[in-house]
Amino acid sequence: MSLDDVRRYLIAYDISDDACRTRVASKLESYGDRVQYSVFIVDARPAKLLRLRTQLSNLIDASTDSVLFCDLGSLRENQRSTLDVVGRSRTITDHGPAIL
Amino acid sequence: MSLDDVRRYLIAYDISDDACRTRVASKLESYGDRVQYSVFIVDARPAKLLRLRTQLSNLIDASTDSVLFCDLGSLRENQRSTLDVVGRSRTITDHGPAIL
Repeated sequence: MSLDDVRRYLIAYDISDDACRTRVASKLESYGDRVQYSVFIVDARPAKLLRLRTQLSNLIDASTDSVLFCDLGSLRENQRSTLDVVGRSRTITDHGPAIL
Repeated sequence: MSLDDVRRYLIAYDISDDACRTRVASKLESYGDRVQYSVFIVDARPAKLLRLRTQLSNLIDASTDSVLFCDLGSLRENQRSTLDVVGRSRTITDHGPAIL
């Protein structure tokens, strides 16, 4: 399986309702790694990301909430070098292709 | 003035203390655009980013708080295409070189 079309995404949310925020966080935890309270890193092919995006769209209230998707480029390019944390940091899993 | 060395950074914070969080947000607002409650976009040359990073390091409690810096690449490469928001979105200023 090739990693060429797997991309790294940073996903951040701004959600006012506690229950909704918990559901979104839970969904994102099933896709990737939590790097901050409301920021996740997800490694996925574009089709999988689109699925996640649709699921999150259905969970949030688009008039008050937002989910930001930031494409950090292909995993092949080792995009981890673009991320840098000051203070307490969490580990980002080095996903193998088998679990993508 | 060349834009070649101006880079776009996404900066997200996770800060528990209210007063500290307000100070960090205020500092970041003077450097860039708020795209979510705790996420900012800053366009800056590396030296200016380093200055901001030092200022933020001095504001936070590194044992409990974190500030995430994500380098989205040079402004010249039109990195705005890497950002995408579902739900309520805020505008990112198109900075001219004169105010960088």
